Amino acid sequence: MKPLGPIPPGYVTIDGELAVAGHKASELVAIAGSTPVFVYSAAHIERRVARLREAMPERLALHYAVKANPFGPVVDLLDPLVDGFDVASGGELSILQGRSVAAERISFAGPGKRDTELEQAVGAGVTLNLESAGEADRALAVADRLGVTPRLAIRVNPDFDLKGSGMKMGGGAKPFGVDAAEVPALARRVIASGAEWQGFHIFAGSQSLDSAAIAETQAATLDLAARLASEIGQALPHCNLGGGLGIPYFPGDEPVDLALVGSRLADAFERLPEILRETRFCLEMGRYLVGEAGIYLTQIVDRKASHGEIFLVVDGGLHHQLAASGNFGTVVRRNYPVAIASRFDSPVEEQASVVGCLCTPLDRLADKAGFPKADVGDLVAVFCAGAYGASASPAQFLGHGPAVELLV
Amino acid sequence: MKPLGPIPPGYVTIDGELAVAGHKASELVAIAGSTPVFVYSAAHIERRVARLREAMPERLALHYAVKANPFGPVVDLLDPLVDGFDVASGGELSILQGRSVAAERISFAGPGKRDTELEQAVGAGVTLNLESAGEADRALAVADRLGVTPRLAIRVNPDFDLKGSGMKMGGGAKPFGVDAAEVPALARRVIASGAEWQGFHIFAGSQSLDSAAIAETQAATLDLAARLASEIGQALPHCNLGGGLGIPYFPGDEPVDLALVGSRLADAFERLPEILRETRFCLEMGRYLVGEAGIYLTQIVDRKASHGEIFLVVDGGLHHQLAASGNFGTVVRRNYPVAIASRFDSPVEEQASVVGCLCTPLDRLADKAGFPKADVGDLVAVFCAGAYGASASPAQFLGHGPAVELLV
Repeated sequence: MKPLGPIPPGYVTIDGELAVAGHKASELVAIAGSTPVFVYSAAHIERRVARLREAMPERLALHYAVKANPFGPVVDLLDPLVDGFDVASGGELSILQGRSVAAERISFAGPGKRDTELEQAVGAGVTLNLESAGEADRALAVADRLGVTPRLAIRVNPDFDLKGSGMKMGGGAKPFGVDAAEVPALARRVIASGAEWQGFHIFAGSQSLDSAAIAETQAATLDLAARLASEIGQALPHCNLGGGLGIPYFPGDEPVDLALVGSRLADAFERLPEILRETRFCLEMGRYLVGEAGIYLTQIVDRKASHGEIFLVVDGGLHHQLAASGNFGTVVRRNYPVAIASRFDSPVEEQASVVGCLCTPLDRLADKAGFPKADVGDLVAVFCAGAYGASASPAQFLGHGPAVELLV
Repeated sequence: MKPLGPIPPGYVTIDGELAVAGHKASELVAIAGSTPVFVYSAAHIERRVARLREAMPERLALHYAVKANPFGPVVDLLDPLVDGFDVASGGELSILQGRSVAAERISFAGPGKRDTELEQAVGAGVTLNLESAGEADRALAVADRLGVTPRLAIRVNPDFDLKGSGMKMGGGAKPFGVDAAEVPALARRVIASGAEWQGFHIFAGSQSLDSAAIAETQAATLDLAARLASEIGQALPHCNLGGGLGIPYFPGDEPVDLALVGSRLADAFERLPEILRETRFCLEMGRYLVGEAGIYLTQIVDRKASHGEIFLVVDGGLHHQLAASGNFGTVVRRNYPVAIASRFDSPVEEQASVVGCLCTPLDRLADKAGFPKADVGDLVAVFCAGAYGASASPAQFLGHGPAVELLV
């Protein structure tokens, strides 16, 4: 029997069923009107932000990376809770504009910004995190054409990466940002152009559970920011320290030690050199804010045995849960936390695999794991579905279309 | 320098640019109105079907698996060329119904058919490939409720798989179909119910380039069909032999030897036992019909160097080309065939990586490969984009949305 990932804390049982915000799984499905459905817990997100505020130094601003979950009600919920938003495309910027998020709270990073996206962002007054000298030229040309002063920061490709991170964004040759060695010259050019100089965006990696490594990377990021600011020769207005805080998905994963990361960062803030004394620092997080707040509920439509193995076939699948199926940037497939939501307090009774409704062997949500005995009509929950679920899966694959989303 | 996959035959150069159907890449982009764009060649698809007709025994029907590319104009093009269609969801069935494909030419396979999908299919007169005894019960109940005679076949989970196949669909415990040993009893029950008995769907695997293995699997499939038909005790009306024919994606891949597969199948048809003498056989293909007929054109928006490596950043990426990025059911990333479409006849001048516009290290369309020197504004073509491209990628990821599609 293969282990399942750890179910995030905060989920409870009502009448034997998994419940979110006081609603049983069956009620959530009734509210949604159909399965599959993504359910996001507002209380879970609020708690997460509150704990971050508690653990982190007061001067650290918190930003939300919209890419993790661009669902409108989630954005609305986070709007008063966070200090800023980061977008990765004109499309994400349009979502924020549609929800009346103030432009001065938004920054835009992404290695392939088109001219139309630069126009949209510069025109609105959004901060651009410049990814290259070429992009700087294009952004300045766009600003000139529009007759506005652009707000420009430089995304730095640091010479180090974040240990234990699922996604390395720095260290060596990378498509992201400007190599650290070339940043001072570009920054001086940006400043000389008359642009509103916003400072740095330094993102070394994401989805790390190694708290010491996160703290070391943040310290290294501060050192790098200080060194680059000195070379530029003026106090740094703003520095996005990146993200990096991971969430537990797999058996054996332990959550980040927020207290440790927060106290190390507070220490580092105490020792800041003069040139960073007035800098506004922020942490940019997507998955960490919303990932564990979401579940994906899908109904069993068939229960079958093949050569002695039990398969629970559900009406959802990798078209909504690509990462949970192990097919998105994963080398070795491991089980996410998955449970029979309609028998949430029942003991393990059998070994079964949960497979999706797609006609491909890739579509597997839990492999040979232990579950209470479930049948047609039972609901399955995939946890950690709040980030990179609905928006990072091929919803049109095999013609099933997207799932309903719900914030409760 | 890492090798690139082989460019499929049939693509030509006009004025130095890659051309499809007499249109240069730049003209195709002008017709589409924007980049990125998927361009499908009607002539390529027609040629592919013609070659199959030539190589395969006359009695073999050809079916198109809509999942490979559900784009309406592609369906319209194939409608008069193929003998039938296979769908994998109610959504795909709706596409065919919307394009007036006759229900009797359609079959529906898929392990998690919901009751609403069964109703849609049974009501229309589509053949259901039953995936389990439970699904048979549900289908019969639906037919009873609707007062119609359902057209039912059984999807068989064979005791063998297709060697060298990218997707194994048979051999051992599988979520697909009914274990061969249990097929006769279920078939007798289906026949006794008064349903219109349609026979078998036996799909051992897909995307194999091993021509001998494909021929052996087809022979084994015929043997299995004969054995099961004998146990059932009546002549088999129809047998879907599955698919299996792969296309070359990667360096060193060689195309399937159609003549060999066709002549072996013709031999096998000569030796058919009495019980299969009148059976209508079909081959179900998706990727093989349309995969090499498609290209994905995307424009370079930035050219940058990082630590001595060249990155060509394009306005497309894994949100349209998940498989090409190596993130869909792939263990080791290898390069698809990729070229600078706007400099298609130019020699290799440098090593570069083509990366997408998404803010993730997963978004890489070509890794450290040889290209002519390209710059902002140049067009990049990813080949083998006709199947499992647009529909099998997370189009909403990072808010960029879907690409335009074009049949020329």
